[in-house]
Amino acid sequence: MPTTTIDRGAYFTSLPQPYYLSPSLYEEELELIWGRQWLLAGHVSQIPAPGDFFTFEIARESLILIRGDDGEVHALYNVCRHRGFRICDPTQGGHMKRILCPYHAWQYGRDGELLHAPKHADGDPFAYADYGLHEAAVEVWQGFIFVHLSDDPLPSIGAELAAADESMGVLQPERMKIVKTIEYPCAANWKLLMENELECYHCAPSHPELCNTLSLAEMHAHHNEWGPDRPYFYSWMPLKNGAKSLTMDGETVVRKPFGEYAEGREVPEGFASGFLVQPTCTFAMFYVDHGITAKLIPNAVGEATLVGDWFVHEDAVEGVDYDLDELVGLWDITHRQDIELANRQQLGIASRKYAPGPDSKRYEPGIESALNLYLEMVGDVSGLLDLPG
Amino acid sequence: MPTTTIDRGAYFTSLPQPYYLSPSLYEEELELIWGRQWLLAGHVSQIPAPGDFFTFEIARESLILIRGDDGEVHALYNVCRHRGFRICDPTQGGHMKRILCPYHAWQYGRDGELLHAPKHADGDPFAYADYGLHEAAVEVWQGFIFVHLSDDPLPSIGAELAAADESMGVLQPERMKIVKTIEYPCAANWKLLMENELECYHCAPSHPELCNTLSLAEMHAHHNEWGPDRPYFYSWMPLKNGAKSLTMDGETVVRKPFGEYAEGREVPEGFASGFLVQPTCTFAMFYVDHGITAKLIPNAVGEATLVGDWFVHEDAVEGVDYDLDELVGLWDITHRQDIELANRQQLGIASRKYAPGPDSKRYEPGIESALNLYLEMVGDVSGLLDLPG
Amino acid sequence: MPTTTIDRGAYFTSLPQPYYLSPSLYEEELELIWGRQWLLAGHVSQIPAPGDFFTFEIARESLILIRGDDGEVHALYNVCRHRGFRICDPTQGGHMKRILCPYHAWQYGRDGELLHAPKHADGDPFAYADYGLHEAAVEVWQGFIFVHLSDDPLPSIGAELAAADESMGVLQPERMKIVKTIEYPCAANWKLLMENELECYHCAPSHPELCNTLSLAEMHAHHNEWGPDRPYFYSWMPLKNGAKSLTMDGETVVRKPFGEYAEGREVPEGFASGFLVQPTCTFAMFYVDHGITAKLIPNAVGEATLVGDWFVHEDAVEGVDYDLDELVGLWDITHRQDIELANRQQLGIASRKYAPGPDSKRYEPGIESALNLYLEMVGDVSGLLDLPG
Repeated sequence: MPTTTIDRGAYFTSLPQPYYLSPSLYEEELELIWGRQWLLAGHVSQIPAPGDFFTFEIARESLILIRGDDGEVHALYNVCRHRGFRICDPTQGGHMKRILCPYHAWQYGRDGELLHAPKHADGDPFAYADYGLHEAAVEVWQGFIFVHLSDDPLPSIGAELAAADESMGVLQPERMKIVKTIEYPCAANWKLLMENELECYHCAPSHPELCNTLSLAEMHAHHNEWGPDRPYFYSWMPLKNGAKSLTMDGETVVRKPFGEYAEGREVPEGFASGFLVQPTCTFAMFYVDHGITAKLIPNAVGEATLVGDWFVHEDAVEGVDYDLDELVGLWDITHRQDIELANRQQLGIASRKYAPGPDSKRYEPGIESALNLYLEMVGDVSGLLDLPG
Repeated sequence: MPTTTIDRGAYFTSLPQPYYLSPSLYEEELELIWGRQWLLAGHVSQIPAPGDFFTFEIARESLILIRGDDGEVHALYNVCRHRGFRICDPTQGGHMKRILCPYHAWQYGRDGELLHAPKHADGDPFAYADYGLHEAAVEVWQGFIFVHLSDDPLPSIGAELAAADESMGVLQPERMKIVKTIEYPCAANWKLLMENELECYHCAPSHPELCNTLSLAEMHAHHNEWGPDRPYFYSWMPLKNGAKSLTMDGETVVRKPFGEYAEGREVPEGFASGFLVQPTCTFAMFYVDHGITAKLIPNAVGEATLVGDWFVHEDAVEGVDYDLDELVGLWDITHRQDIELANRQQLGIASRKYAPGPDSKRYEPGIESALNLYLEMVGDVSGLLDLPG
Repeated sequence: MPTTTIDRGAYFTSLPQPYYLSPSLYEEELELIWGRQWLLAGHVSQIPAPGDFFTFEIARESLILIRGDDGEVHALYNVCRHRGFRICDPTQGGHMKRILCPYHAWQYGRDGELLHAPKHADGDPFAYADYGLHEAAVEVWQGFIFVHLSDDPLPSIGAELAAADESMGVLQPERMKIVKTIEYPCAANWKLLMENELECYHCAPSHPELCNTLSLAEMHAHHNEWGPDRPYFYSWMPLKNGAKSLTMDGETVVRKPFGEYAEGREVPEGFASGFLVQPTCTFAMFYVDHGITAKLIPNAVGEATLVGDWFVHEDAVEGVDYDLDELVGLWDITHRQDIELANRQQLGIASRKYAPGPDSKRYEPGIESALNLYLEMVGDVSGLLDLPG
């Protein structure tokens, strides 16, 4: 049987087989990893006015992201306090005057407080104040809505990403909009997509389109500068000399640039911004004209969904300022390539002959950083390394 | 993590999360609940003559319901005594001279006795008498065929439902026929459908069509009259004033009334009859012109099938005495609504923030009755409250 | 609950319920049975020249069967030594100059040696010689490629099947080709297909087409001659008097006979050859004009795939020497019948009333032989007889 021991005498390696196959470990990860990090849920442009909402599904939870009467974004657990009904359907989204559970018509305010439990008014002596919707922590940074599921507070995501403030701020991300969302189902453990994202060793063989305009040398250098193993990074994908945007040909794909660049500010050579969250594998890559975010959603030990969003200036008009297929083109093909890679790696890892091999110190340091963080977060999981069956 | 403790200090509540999600508990329930109750299998009109049969699938079992040469209904385990072959395909049904296993051609009589094991006659010395098909307990009450899977006897279902004898008897249910069967797949634990069935608190928000003719006030009163926590009830759904049948508009949907009402007997104002089995969630609701039964079939911890049957007088002719769409209309939409409710509740119950909330003493007493019975039947299951993973 | 004890006081029987339903036992079987037998992977005609390859998937493994530069057939684990990628897609096949992992472009030679790990050349000090692809044992007998997954050697398959050398050799099997492959998915435990294959008690009731030309009497006699419980057999399916080939009507279906029979050698009355592997249920049945192999591939405790291949002379031309539908006809229908039998038996075995019944000493001795071997191979599995849930 393949080993379960992590042996890094000579080389840094990925993880032994059971880390990618154990259902019990996966369940623990939902709590210890996914339940204890800031997760990118969406963007303020999705809910501009009080009562606007969307839902965010992750780690068996569903949150209602709603702008409250107080003007703030609230993240409410999508679970009625009466008998646990999932109040809003994930396909829903839009505007609500009140949050109405369709099962027994319990009504909640936009800030989550219980307003009315029909017929209980007849005499059941319980206090409405005790039965508001549970609320998750939420923080908006540069227009991006982050949430976390932990009952303990986490350090501010804005403080964590302060290094990205300047370059992102110039883009005025709160004045962007999402014009395309694609969900990519993946038949692999989420950590394989995470590892994939954190090295560009595979970019030349696997992503020819991306390599048209991505500077591989600077990308590798960037990965080597990360330093200590921490979860939140100011990160970007560097452009080749002369490229203006990370696109098929290096030209911009949206006529209307973002933020201050729309007002005449000079664009620095090779401008790029973004951020990265590990090990939960969320990243944002922004250029002068467009940007993308990619979120990983774990579904089961061997299943995940990659959710890709494409951003343009809030005033950009499809067919006038950009062509949607052209906008989406590069990352759509890149995401599909990565999913296919993860799917096939998952198959190989199930082999009795799989053992983690030597990772390149120079070209795969991102994996080392993320896995060290991962191992620190999960702690001793030796009792959970069972395989299915 | 959500609690596993049942705390009813202040209120009656539904069950903690693991009761709806634990695969181990589900397996035990098949034995302790589904294996120890009378289950509605079908109706005598399906097998009028010796050799007529149908199959009934439940709790990983398949029974052959066959009218024997003795004129009685037999419930034979659909498992060949040779090597376990499932003799009759569930899609089969009809008439058999003998029960022939298609694998090796072992032949059984209509009462289950082994008649011939080909080639064993050549000399293997085993006694045919020891290898008849296993038989399950069966009882016919008012034309409804009940079975149970327990090796121990259960009290007569007829005696349990004696209170319903008079009102059901007037309808002469053995002279009805089933004219439509629909299976509704459900992605929820079976107990959520059971709880759904046992309260009408949700009827106003969730079943507008049903509420056209159902008297909510009397329904709630009926639920409050149930008293002790027992499995079999004379039960009905009361009509609003002036309604003649539980239909979209309160009018009958079949011209030919049932039983003595076809012979001129005066119909009492708001006539309704039926019965209910809890916690296995089977019910029958009959009116002067038509009736329905609904059976719940558990398939897995988070999967069940609701099987709806529609009954009319045996002499009623489609297109003349009734329109099939009109007959089926109200309960088809009502069943679909309930399935959708259970599906979404199942999602919410998986949340780490789910905890059973206060049930209404006045409007949800049926849940208390069924869950008390359920908890008594399963006994101490604290060792089974594991979650998947 | 059904018994888990094997009781053969009076009769030989099949196995108790958990042997067919336990996921834990299934996992062990992959190691103790499927990991310790010669498995039929394919045929030399699939890879005539160096660099030709195909993949063989079994028991969660994937092997690359490739003809090396040394002219020999190699069975390489399809798992990159870097991060476990499944190098060749199962749908692939054809010709390779080098074995290239598409993820990070590690390159291996056709004999499995690591030739190049891009960028590691920059300085990571690990020895290429330690990172060649793992190799499985392979042996070619009469043109049939066998592999096994055990780290310990097994006795030569050629020696095991020596009794079949003469009759197979006359056919010159290395000069055959596969002209049709069909995969038959099955929703049953693999052992039910194995038992099915090893008795012809079911042939008369279940395979009317096969019984046109198969001599049942000689088949039963052949099964009774097997003697000791061993894994590899010279085996064949005997023809009825006057039949020339095992086909729908006893006539040959290919004009061009195999091997020496094409060169005028006289065909013995009722010529048949073949071999059988138990308990892993692989068999080959060859006649003067055509042959078939059938391989069983286990996928999960209740899922398997039967892979059927049809062979003709390497020079036979479709439409001239044979009609493909006619060639495939008999075994296609026979395989489908057996799959349907196993699927329905699997359902019956899940019943709480299932218990293994008396097997016929005269007509089912093959089951006894294979199950004795199986029980010896798995050893004490009493701790693994858990059921799902």
